Amino acid sequence: MHEYTQYLGFAKSMAARASKIMQKYYDRSDITSYKDDESIVTIADQAINKDLINQVRRAFPGHAVDGEEEQFGKGKSRFVWVCDPIDGTFMYAHHIPVATFSLALVIDGAPTIGVIYEPFADNLYYAVKDKGAYLREHAFLQEINPRPKDKKLSVNDYRLDSRGSEGDFYMWPSAEYNLWPALEELGHKSYFGSIGGAVRACACVAGGDFNAVIFPGTKHKNCDVAAAKVIVEEAGGKVTDLFGHEQRYDRDIKGALITNGVVHDEILKVLAKHISSPKK
Amino acid sequence: MHEYTQYLGFAKSMAARASKIMQKYYDRSDITSYKDDESIVTIADQAINKDLINQVRRAFPGHAVDGEEEQFGKGKSRFVWVCDPIDGTFMYAHHIPVATFSLALVIDGAPTIGVIYEPFADNLYYAVKDKGAYLREHAFLQEINPRPKDKKLSVNDYRLDSRGSEGDFYMWPSAEYNLWPALEELGHKSYFGSIGGAVRACACVAGGDFNAVIFPGTKHKNCDVAAAKVIVEEAGGKVTDLFGHEQRYDRDIKGALITNGVVHDEILKVLAKHISSPKK
Repeated sequence: MHEYTQYLGFAKSMAARASKIMQKYYDRSDITSYKDDESIVTIADQAINKDLINQVRRAFPGHAVDGEEEQFGKGKSRFVWVCDPIDGTFMYAHHIPVATFSLALVIDGAPTIGVIYEPFADNLYYAVKDKGAYLREHAFLQEINPRPKDKKLSVNDYRLDSRGSEGDFYMWPSAEYNLWPALEELGHKSYFGSIGGAVRACACVAGGDFNAVIFPGTKHKNCDVAAAKVIVEEAGGKVTDLFGHEQRYDRDIKGALITNGVVHDEILKVLAKHISSPKK
Repeated sequence: MHEYTQYLGFAKSMAARASKIMQKYYDRSDITSYKDDESIVTIADQAINKDLINQVRRAFPGHAVDGEEEQFGKGKSRFVWVCDPIDGTFMYAHHIPVATFSLALVIDGAPTIGVIYEPFADNLYYAVKDKGAYLREHAFLQEINPRPKDKKLSVNDYRLDSRGSEGDFYMWPSAEYNLWPALEELGHKSYFGSIGGAVRACACVAGGDFNAVIFPGTKHKNCDVAAAKVIVEEAGGKVTDLFGHEQRYDRDIKGALITNGVVHDEILKVLAKHISSPKK
């Protein structure tokens, strides 16, 4: 068995485990607390993160874990499992079923395996570098779908002004970048809305529903887009930082622009007018 | 039986009927088309709207229907059933389970009965003018909840800068109002995001999850906020147009500001700096 098969199988199994934890806590109130940046964290976030660390230590003792809520062995391995236990925590905490699980195996800074799972829709998006990106519907509900068929993912080819094209953006309250002026300018060409979760929106780019996601997160926000990087690019799209450059996904990032490739440069040009790279 | 009880019962039964139609078409692709303003309409929108007209004609022959997709007897009755068959159509069409059904009985321009239903969460929000606003969880899935208990809804009392307070906004691509500059200014005080559907967001204001919704829709967008007007105000909040004035909900509106009451004037002041009333 090729080692990638083993890594991918592990990532999928973690999605299934995360799903159970998310379902378990979904209907409970009083499961939330606030982090220093005033974003929400739930008991479920923490439980999924802890479970991932336990499982990685068992399966791949030499690997590190960079989870949004907890880290293990960071900086000590070329192999880092980068995880956002629940993206769309705000939605999850308010019982709006849009939350997703995101996990990537990042090797030497490059996302090589990526899994995004939507527990409420039971959709599993996954990709291995150079092997394509796929969607498995009804992934873990075997009683519904005993022999799931995987659908190859492909980005759309819409331009910003195409009829029926759809953009998307996601804001982060503590982000270093003020996207509002750029969004105002882009809003004249396309519809920019939000669906309440960056990871879910990136999956929509991979699946051809959206043109683009503009993601302004920086500090520890590699967790949000590491899996999307490999999934969207394997679906034919393009992912860079907000300035058009490649970046590592095992440390802080300079935001992310996730597109179908067609609109990438046009959005970069507008961003360049309105935001600049942080000095630090 | 008081006539309001009859109207409320009718509105609830329409929510249940709409839910079945939404569920029926949810997993189908190729159910969408585009309207002149490039917003999406689905087969389900049209079917729910047509069903409402048929049912109103049967139950209340003298009443009119102002549905987002189809109207009946408009301008010929003081009693108008104002309906957005599916709010969050974009989400619905992309199989993201956030869509809601919204129906109000508007009498002489004033929403008097309001029902908002989330078919995927099975949550029914409802209010009668001067009688309070309520949430019934697991409203129509009797096998889960044989004796549903109704919870009284109440807005929160957060200010814009309260820790843990949450704002929300919703954009409409063809709206007359450019909200971006106002959102940029408000974004310094609070977190303004979007959950992909104005009606769902208004329900969150009524339930105390959100502080505010800023809704820039105008032409035929009374359909989106008529039910929210009575539900949010019965929950203790405030709903005006974007300039702080009361307005009728049986014709085009000048946007809507839907808040907990506490933050209403502060948001109005910021809006006044950046937008002006359309001339027409």
